[in-house]
Amino acid sequence: MLMLTIDRADRAPVYEQIRRRIVAMVDRGALAPGDRLPPTRLLAQKLGVHRSTVVRAYEELWALGYLESRAGSYSTVRRRARPVATTNVPEVATSTAPAPAKPPTAVRWKTAGSSRVTRALEDAAQLAARRRPPNSAVDFTRLTADMTLSPQEELRWCFRSVLIRQGREVMDYGDAHGYLPLRETIAMRMRAHGVSVLAEEILVTNGAQHALDLALRLLTRAGDAIAVESPSYACALSLFRLQELNLREIPMRHDGMDLDALETALRRGSPKLVYTIPNFHNPTGITTDQAHRERLLGLCERHRVPLVEDGFEEEMKYFGLAVLPIKSMDERGTVLYLGTFSKVVFPGLRIGWIAAPREAVERLYAIQRVSSLCGNIVAQAVAARFCSSGYYETFLRRIHKVYRGRMQAMLQGLREHLPKGVEWTEPAGGYTLWIGLPGVTMKEEEICARLLRDGVQVSPGSVFLPRRAAHPHFRLSIACTGEAEIAEGCRRLGRSLATMLGG
Amino acid sequence: MLMLTIDRADRAPVYEQIRRRIVAMVDRGALAPGDRLPPTRLLAQKLGVHRSTVVRAYEELWALGYLESRAGSYSTVRRRARPVATTNVPEVATSTAPAPAKPPTAVRWKTAGSSRVTRALEDAAQLAARRRPPNSAVDFTRLTADMTLSPQEELRWCFRSVLIRQGREVMDYGDAHGYLPLRETIAMRMRAHGVSVLAEEILVTNGAQHALDLALRLLTRAGDAIAVESPSYACALSLFRLQELNLREIPMRHDGMDLDALETALRRGSPKLVYTIPNFHNPTGITTDQAHRERLLGLCERHRVPLVEDGFEEEMKYFGLAVLPIKSMDERGTVLYLGTFSKVVFPGLRIGWIAAPREAVERLYAIQRVSSLCGNIVAQAVAARFCSSGYYETFLRRIHKVYRGRMQAMLQGLREHLPKGVEWTEPAGGYTLWIGLPGVTMKEEEICARLLRDGVQVSPGSVFLPRRAAHPHFRLSIACTGEAEIAEGCRRLGRSLATMLGG
Repeated sequence: MLMLTIDRADRAPVYEQIRRRIVAMVDRGALAPGDRLPPTRLLAQKLGVHRSTVVRAYEELWALGYLESRAGSYSTVRRRARPVATTNVPEVATSTAPAPAKPPTAVRWKTAGSSRVTRALEDAAQLAARRRPPNSAVDFTRLTADMTLSPQEELRWCFRSVLIRQGREVMDYGDAHGYLPLRETIAMRMRAHGVSVLAEEILVTNGAQHALDLALRLLTRAGDAIAVESPSYACALSLFRLQELNLREIPMRHDGMDLDALETALRRGSPKLVYTIPNFHNPTGITTDQAHRERLLGLCERHRVPLVEDGFEEEMKYFGLAVLPIKSMDERGTVLYLGTFSKVVFPGLRIGWIAAPREAVERLYAIQRVSSLCGNIVAQAVAARFCSSGYYETFLRRIHKVYRGRMQAMLQGLREHLPKGVEWTEPAGGYTLWIGLPGVTMKEEEICARLLRDGVQVSPGSVFLPRRAAHPHFRLSIACTGEAEIAEGCRRLGRSLATMLGG
Repeated sequence: MLMLTIDRADRAPVYEQIRRRIVAMVDRGALAPGDRLPPTRLLAQKLGVHRSTVVRAYEELWALGYLESRAGSYSTVRRRARPVATTNVPEVATSTAPAPAKPPTAVRWKTAGSSRVTRALEDAAQLAARRRPPNSAVDFTRLTADMTLSPQEELRWCFRSVLIRQGREVMDYGDAHGYLPLRETIAMRMRAHGVSVLAEEILVTNGAQHALDLALRLLTRAGDAIAVESPSYACALSLFRLQELNLREIPMRHDGMDLDALETALRRGSPKLVYTIPNFHNPTGITTDQAHRERLLGLCERHRVPLVEDGFEEEMKYFGLAVLPIKSMDERGTVLYLGTFSKVVFPGLRIGWIAAPREAVERLYAIQRVSSLCGNIVAQAVAARFCSSGYYETFLRRIHKVYRGRMQAMLQGLREHLPKGVEWTEPAGGYTLWIGLPGVTMKEEEICARLLRDGVQVSPGSVFLPRRAAHPHFRLSIACTGEAEIAEGCRRLGRSLATMLGG
């Protein structure tokens, strides 16, 4: 007969003490597989406890794999392949004996997904590292909506309104095309930019990066070639590498992608798509003109190659009049347009979209449906409310004024402080400028490191260039930097570069 | 000299009238490329308007691609490759002449992504069609959190609290690993299920479907083989097809996946992963026991094959004691565990997770970072608050009671009403039961159609089976059906099946 004692001074419940002791006996071999445990009634009598206490202990022993049969009939001992912690309450579990050293892993996770994932991991680490400049440095790296300008009160109102009126609806699964009122709102905004689309031609995504990912999953397979501006958006390049695409690099000129080079590339191979950022290009800040857009679209049409137009800062035209999106001329359905709210307001809500011919939207929808069921409906409803209430328009007007001021401060600062020979772009909007140091042989990393030591943080050009450029570049962003800071940053930049280049 | 008139009765602004007329002249050929427009000062005098009005019209003409130079210097006419709508205000644009028929599309979107996307589109359409039963039918198809039970007030409180205390933080980009307090909360909940993990071993995703997608992107490439239970979760099968994986189907027996068949499959080929749903298996409702779990894990360890454990309803153990997750025994780091809140509460917030060895989490993080920057931080913070406030625990206790009642009603209804020869599973929790009709030759679609005509909607077995089964099956779900409705549904089911099988 089983020898079991109960410690009345122990604060653990009796059923747990019984369970723990039997587990220990089996793990030690004191009870062998096939041994019968006493019937619950008998053990309860012997221990002087209620029978249900023993039943509970036996039930847990069954669930933990120590007993063969279900509670009720005779229970026999079964040897578990591996012992368990005798309690699943975390606080107690961690306070007992230290866990034994873990045996070696069976699966080689460190190389899973091979080099494509390793490279993505390096890219992610690099981005994370550049996130946090020393407190004293002027930060010209961040390219995101400035949270100090965030319209918190208006957003809280939108959340409250959505949760009160449609709480149950938005907490449920929704349409993988996107929340219909938001698709309508986005279509209307696109029409205000000259793009004639209906809600059915809009797919809402979890941000523009996710939109690009869906586009790649539709249009490409590993090993395919695509045409891409060089330099280009760093995270797009990371995604292209993750998807194992071959990049046909088309050099950026002062007026946009070199279209002669693109024409040659289109004639030679057949890239699966052309990726372009026509407005406030990241990183250069260049906006292409109408003539450039017409020729680019014409080339893609002639070669039947989809044109992926990244309009990530469409709304940030704050100097003069800007050119309409290429999508506005897309009568033959060649353009997949990527849009987002994230560079203007609430990136944390993760809302982007694709405007495309209906057939393309349906196929992208299928990929989204199957890979993630649907997007975040609460966030989508809040974004729709933010637009329909007029808050978005008001907010845009406000930040246009802010960024006009910041960009003017930046351009004036550069003119005043940068030494001769340094080149920079003059954007018509957006956040970024591109600095070139022609004739300089010093390494980019060294230049950026020295700038940081001198109190100004910039993004090194190599991040945006699939291959090395002829001379060093870096990107400046005014997204999250106020006017006074910008002026100070330009002074530091000028002083530091003058020392470097003069020396 | 240019002949231009202004209509003072026209409600459109003067600059818009000027712009529109010049656009029309160029599009008609009345103005030829290279023609000079009058200087703004002269035209303003002639029309009797302020010069800035003409400047604005010229600026817009430049932006639309009708003028060669920038405003300020001489302006000459440029022929646009294609005409544009002469206004970009949507209301006016749609009220003018009907759009001309569009030329044929340049890109063949209808076949983009080929058969894998076409199949995903069919799957999505099929799912959408099954969404809306006729009003009078008892719906046994929906497998999602019941929104009539949704804790709306508590959730509103969580949103308010997060937005007031951390509004700016959660509206910004966040960590692609997931919001740290939520990762800690999830790790703690996992520990309560016997799984010893830290926050660093948790990756938050946009739902469990997205978690599975990330796992596939890490572990597989098109053409790879994976081992999967048959039948299995319909949307997982869709995703496997989208990723062009070859399925090694392991038949489900009454006690779970046939492990002898799995062992043979592991010996023969080397599948890239084994996918299993050990608790309340979808669609069968089967929960495997401890011995089955130990052997399954042992097999995966021996063959060094990752085991993807889908714990989508881990929290829905409402009958007796359930077995701990396989992940709880995973000392050698073989298991990727997928979790989600969506089958219990707030699917619209899209929050799932992966619990895995740290090396695996880092590589999954890299894929998530590069393919979508980060998840929805607002939603993640709200979920963390919902747990930390104790609302989640309280809510779980409440719905366990509800579902115990529903499942008992269901099992009783089936026993009372189903004709002889019909088989069904008896789940220990969760929402689904699996009905088999051995010996019946009638087609599954016909059976389901007749059931629907008789007022009860079920999910046909074929949706869950990669290949045809020997005899018809269907799935019943009690997720969104109350007790009285369940009783009525069982009566209808019994009557309808009796007529069909008797006849």
